[in-house]
Parts: sequence; structure tokens; C-alpha cells
Amino acid sequence: MSFDPATLVYDANGLIPCIAQEEATGEVLMMAWMNAESVARTLETGRVTYWSRSRQSFWVKGESSGHLQELVELRVDCDSDCLLALVRQTGPACHTNRRSCFYTAVRNGEEVEIMAPMAEG
Amino acid sequence: MSFDPATLVYDANGLIPCIAQEEATGEVLMMAWMNAESVARTLETGRVTYWSRSRQSFWVKGESSGHLQELVELRVDCDSDCLLALVRQTGPACHTNRRSCFYTAVRNGEEVEIMAPMAEG
Repeated sequence: MSFDPATLVYDANGLIPCIAQEEATGEVLMMAWMNAESVARTLETGRVTYWSRSRQSFWVKGESSGHLQELVELRVDCDSDCLLALVRQTGPACHTNRRSCFYTAVRNGEEVEIMAPMAEG
Repeated sequence: MSFDPATLVYDANGLIPCIAQEEATGEVLMMAWMNAESVARTLETGRVTYWSRSRQSFWVKGESSGHLQELVELRVDCDSDCLLALVRQTGPACHTNRRSCFYTAVRNGEEVEIMAPMAEG
């Protein structure tokens, strides 16, 4: 049966969270939001396409920065209300130029930085 | 500086999404929600504690099923509006008895099951 993005469960704003994970390493890179059309575009183009809540527009990841996310596989969770995109990430996923957006950790009760920005190419 | 859960960015319902990832394998297990008190309890007890939106109550993962999530490390993203919990998951993370909640994938335009339930222990 053909997959229909309308079968997913969206929140009151019509959005569903999507986790991006680097396929080769398993590293969790980021989490952002999609609407049904983002999901459809991601599957059609193979380029992960979020919905920017701040700009209220489609956001082809890396379109301006060159740090594209190539879709390897899109997975759906048991409640159909969260997506997991396995991707091949070019360069940093984070706007701070770090590989992953999850670059601080709570260690010994303090929030510490655990990842440096990537060197410019 | 001591980490304060109040520094995180919560949505209109006072919640923040938390991704659980198996520390040993990198497998993404599930995504669920926390409020500030969930975050504090998770850090204090070392047992990942979500906020159940359907039951409107704290949800110590595995408390009833025995499928506990032991916290290894809590990470915060660049916008402080998403958490990544590295965990040691006992048994299945999914209520369907699968290891991960992300057990279907869109392949060749169809949603297919890619993971079977775990055998009962």
C-alpha cells in the first residue's frame, strides 16, 4: 500500500517532529519539524525538507549552507507521531557549525560543551 | 555552573521532546516528552522519567513493564528545545514489544515493517 503522509499524526500546528540520524555512524544530528508537504517533498526529492516554524516556510536542509541532508530512509514510530530520518549529512548539521546540534551534556550536575565547531572546509 | 532545567525551552504545554538513544549501539529507541520536573527527576534518579500527555502524569519508563531506561547522559541541543538521552534500555523500548518504536520504514513508496517484536523473556 502506497505511503500517504496524511496517515501521520500531526500536532495542533500540523507538524510532526523528525529526528535526523547519520546513517553511517548512528549519530543523532538534530530534530526539526515537518508538515505533510515537507514529508512528501523529502520522499520525492531525497533531500530532507523541514518546515521552519520561525520563518513559516519550507526549509530544504543545507540549501543555503550547502550542508545537505540526503535521505537514506524515513522511519515512522508506533504512534505515527514522530519520524526518524536516516541521512547522509554533508558537513555540520548544526547552525553553530558543529556536526550535531546536541553538543552540550549535563555532567556532574553542570552543562558542559562536548563538541567543538568543525573546521571550515 | 549548576544545570537548571528551567533554562530549557518548553512548548506552550510546558513540554520538551526527549529522544532516547541506546548508548551501546546508537539505536534510536523512542521520542517522548518531559516537563521541567521530569528532567530534574531523570537527572536525580538516573531513571528516564517522561511526562505522559495522555495520562497527565509522570511516567518512569519501565516502572510497570520492567523495561527501564537507565540514564547514561543527558544532552541538550543548540536551541535548548530538544533533549537527547543516552540510555541503557532493558528489553523493548516500545509498547509493542519491539526494541525501538521506529519499526516501520518507507521503502519504494510503501510503509513496511522492519522489526519484529522481541521474544518474551
